[in-house]
Amino acid sequence: MALKAKVLYDFLSENPGEIAITQNEVVTVFSEEELEGWLEGENSKGETGLFPASYVMIIKDQVISSPNKNGYSSPKTQPPSHTTSIPNYEKVHGPADGSNSLHTSLGSDDDWDDDWDDSSPASDAPQGLGSSPPLYPVTTVLPGRRSSQQQQAKSSGLVGKNLNRFSTFVKSGGEAFLLGEASAFVKDGDKICVVVGKYGPEWQEDPYPFTCTIDDPTKQTKFKGMKSYMSYGLTPTHTNTQVNRRYKHFDWLYARLVERFPVISVPHLPEKQATGRFEEDFLSKRRKGLMWWMNHMTSHPVLAHCNVFQHFLTCGPDEKAWKMGKRKAEKDDLVGANFFLTISPPSVPLDLQEVENKIDNFKMFTKKLDDNIVVMNATINEFARKQTTGFQKEYHKVGQSFKLLSQAFELDQQTFSLGLNRAIAYTGEAYEKIGDYFAEQPHQDLDHISDLLDLYRGHLANFPDILHVQKGALTKVKECPKQEGGLQERCNIISCATMAEIQHFHRTRVRDFRSQMQHHLRQQISFFQKITAKLENALQKYDDDNADPGL
Amino acid sequence: MALKAKVLYDFLSENPGEIAITQNEVVTVFSEEELEGWLEGENSKGETGLFPASYVMIIKDQVISSPNKNGYSSPKTQPPSHTTSIPNYEKVHGPADGSNSLHTSLGSDDDWDDDWDDSSPASDAPQGLGSSPPLYPVTTVLPGRRSSQQQQAKSSGLVGKNLNRFSTFVKSGGEAFLLGEASAFVKDGDKICVVVGKYGPEWQEDPYPFTCTIDDPTKQTKFKGMKSYMSYGLTPTHTNTQVNRRYKHFDWLYARLVERFPVISVPHLPEKQATGRFEEDFLSKRRKGLMWWMNHMTSHPVLAHCNVFQHFLTCGPDEKAWKMGKRKAEKDDLVGANFFLTISPPSVPLDLQEVENKIDNFKMFTKKLDDNIVVMNATINEFARKQTTGFQKEYHKVGQSFKLLSQAFELDQQTFSLGLNRAIAYTGEAYEKIGDYFAEQPHQDLDHISDLLDLYRGHLANFPDILHVQKGALTKVKECPKQEGGLQERCNIISCATMAEIQHFHRTRVRDFRSQMQHHLRQQISFFQKITAKLENALQKYDDDNADPGL
Repeated sequence: MALKAKVLYDFLSENPGEIAITQNEVVTVFSEEELEGWLEGENSKGETGLFPASYVMIIKDQVISSPNKNGYSSPKTQPPSHTTSIPNYEKVHGPADGSNSLHTSLGSDDDWDDDWDDSSPASDAPQGLGSSPPLYPVTTVLPGRRSSQQQQAKSSGLVGKNLNRFSTFVKSGGEAFLLGEASAFVKDGDKICVVVGKYGPEWQEDPYPFTCTIDDPTKQTKFKGMKSYMSYGLTPTHTNTQVNRRYKHFDWLYARLVERFPVISVPHLPEKQATGRFEEDFLSKRRKGLMWWMNHMTSHPVLAHCNVFQHFLTCGPDEKAWKMGKRKAEKDDLVGANFFLTISPPSVPLDLQEVENKIDNFKMFTKKLDDNIVVMNATINEFARKQTTGFQKEYHKVGQSFKLLSQAFELDQQTFSLGLNRAIAYTGEAYEKIGDYFAEQPHQDLDHISDLLDLYRGHLANFPDILHVQKGALTKVKECPKQEGGLQERCNIISCATMAEIQHFHRTRVRDFRSQMQHHLRQQISFFQKITAKLENALQKYDDDNADPGL
Repeated sequence: MALKAKVLYDFLSENPGEIAITQNEVVTVFSEEELEGWLEGENSKGETGLFPASYVMIIKDQVISSPNKNGYSSPKTQPPSHTTSIPNYEKVHGPADGSNSLHTSLGSDDDWDDDWDDSSPASDAPQGLGSSPPLYPVTTVLPGRRSSQQQQAKSSGLVGKNLNRFSTFVKSGGEAFLLGEASAFVKDGDKICVVVGKYGPEWQEDPYPFTCTIDDPTKQTKFKGMKSYMSYGLTPTHTNTQVNRRYKHFDWLYARLVERFPVISVPHLPEKQATGRFEEDFLSKRRKGLMWWMNHMTSHPVLAHCNVFQHFLTCGPDEKAWKMGKRKAEKDDLVGANFFLTISPPSVPLDLQEVENKIDNFKMFTKKLDDNIVVMNATINEFARKQTTGFQKEYHKVGQSFKLLSQAFELDQQTFSLGLNRAIAYTGEAYEKIGDYFAEQPHQDLDHISDLLDLYRGHLANFPDILHVQKGALTKVKECPKQEGGLQERCNIISCATMAEIQHFHRTRVRDFRSQMQHHLRQQISFFQKITAKLENALQKYDDDNADPGL
């Protein structure tokens, strides 16, 4: 019984077993039964394979019906979050490609010693330990991965499951947790407390705060000099012991964190290819980006003290110890849905209506901030460009014209003229120097603001998915009139975590922008003071002993 | 006996009685006899009238010969100074148009009360009192003017006269004086001493130095309000009494001075039409130009104390007194050739070879200075333009982007955010203000330099003619082997005056540029300090009480 289905959205096959389907195309569906959100069928080209169930509508007796019966998050005019989850932001890291899960499931750590090229971080992607791909970025989930089948078995069956398997709510594990499907042993040390602060729920303050410095990268070799790579020296303040890490280690860590924490905004790593605004050393630029990244990591109460990050920061050069920690992190059970099990909410549950309002406001806030940061970044980059080109050129030209004046004056070699000639020549040099100051200045201030904006654009790109998880939980609770099986309590946990993360975002935003604006202004002040000093220096030349006293 | 002549240079008729002739045209010459440098003839269009003898070569028996038999200053490849005397400089004032000499010779002062339009200063041009038109600007001399016939009668006849009547040497009266044709009664008070200073001949220092302020012009009316004009209040320090003068009075004075002093560089008046670099009030710009002019006048030992200038500075509102002084100045006998009679040279005559070398060097100096001032003026004007457009715009844009950031931040109204929001908004305003500072700054410094350069370009335009007079005298002396009739002494007087004027130029140049560069740098320093203060102000906002103490 071959059914027909009409294709609603274009779908490009990204993995073996998938087939591409095109909007308005009519495809054959082999079975109405979905495999975790996928249908098997044949497209009009005669290719057979899997495609997302939510991308098609099955045609029954001339009536087209969506296989996605539950309306939640099923877009009317847009394809599912698959293609819309990363607004305004380039996809940089692609850790969620499940295609190498087999490879990793063999437990091979050999790849760690390969001389990975930093340009292929995806090779160390999440390795099928959890039931869901990480929040960000979103790619397709292949059927056949170790799935939530066990968890499905535990489903209460009283609350309907969301059939859109592409929903972030589902993929993050939020749905599974809400439905009581999550189950794991949580040690006391893994507990994460949300407390009620002055401004609402917040992560319990870090009792052992620390920071971590990153040195300029150094070139390392292995295999008797056959291979070389760059290594960053990290020194956390709580151990005060330097460890060496490569960019690929950062990348591996990032993938673990994204997988581990569904509603925490893990800061994006600096882009691999620095879009060289200036001819600055790429590695130095990356190091600055990593410092921003590290700064956010160590100041986040949850991220700073999670096991995988601590392993990353503190594990010494002993390869065996490193591998053990690595394997442990990759086998961590408290990822995705189970992360929520670690959260201890405040004793009084939140008012869900209030939470909804606050989250709506925050959504507007992030939208506007993202828009304005785009404008600001463009302006600042353009201003930096103007300073290194136009401004410098103008001051150079003025300097040169002063020099021309002094060159003409030098044809008159009477002694009373000499002092002036020299002073004007010096003024010309001063102006040329001021032109150089303008060209150098953006590295001291605008670059830093630009780096900060990049970091925050990364956070802003994370939040739609985070908010989505909370929204999904809230919708689910509203749909279920009977408050059974602790649904409300679990929704409260998700809400508390989300609100705490939002609050943390605001705190760090205010802290980071305050300190960066102060840094910027201090740099600008010392810049203009440097110019002033140069001009004062030039002015003195007009009073010096070379001047004819008789004049 | 109609002769033919080949035209060497284009000549445009400028006055009644003249005809236009074109290079390579063959014209008919009615008589080989010149009338003070002019020939009468008929051009190929059939027009009859006068044209300059030096512009044609008479064709005799197929041999072309120049009517200008004496080689001095007869250019081989260029037309005579008629068209080359004002290098790189626009003809601004045209006082030497002799066409209204009849009008003025009637002694009419009525025109003084007419409501002259400032745009026709030439209507108060030199009025035929001297034998030669003033040095600058040079236009044709009409036959039939009261000429040097009397003086010719006194000519020694031993030294040949220069037949090129267009030569500045001739027109300035330099030749007449050198040949001993000048004669006038010189009172002690009119004596001008050249002394030998540390650096060579110089004008005797002014024993009664003074300066003169110029107030912003005020609108005056006359004929019961029917006519209005702008009047400048001048207050010389030696009388401390304000007099009111219109631009046309400056213009009249300028014409008198140019006529009076053959080898003194009379500063040019500011241009009538200020080429409005900025939207500044035109009158205020002219006033600044007049102040530079006045500053040069009062600091010149010869110009400052000459009768006509003193009359201009000190004569009160009594119209009768003004007219008397005006008539006296216009009837002054010590103009042109006779000016040299007033000069008392140092007792030891100058080494003419040394003078020649120095003058050659000075010529190179003025050439280079003029070239470089052209470049500098263009650069400075462009820089001013950039500051009022590009620089302002860039700072405004950065300011606006800070404001955008604060607007996004304001969507989060938690108290710990408010202080930062306000501080960033303030920083945005500060940057906008700094943009305005950049736009306003050129009025404070670059404009002044530009005015100074304008003044000096005027001087540089004067010097070729001044040097020409000295060179003419020197050439004449070299041509005449016998040192008779005081020729050498008179050449020494011309040389002393020229050298003194050159020295004065250097002195004022060093003084003016030193003070202007100092002024410029002081302005720039206070400009950058103002910016720094604004930024410091903004920086303080980040520390204020609005910040959450807990952060």
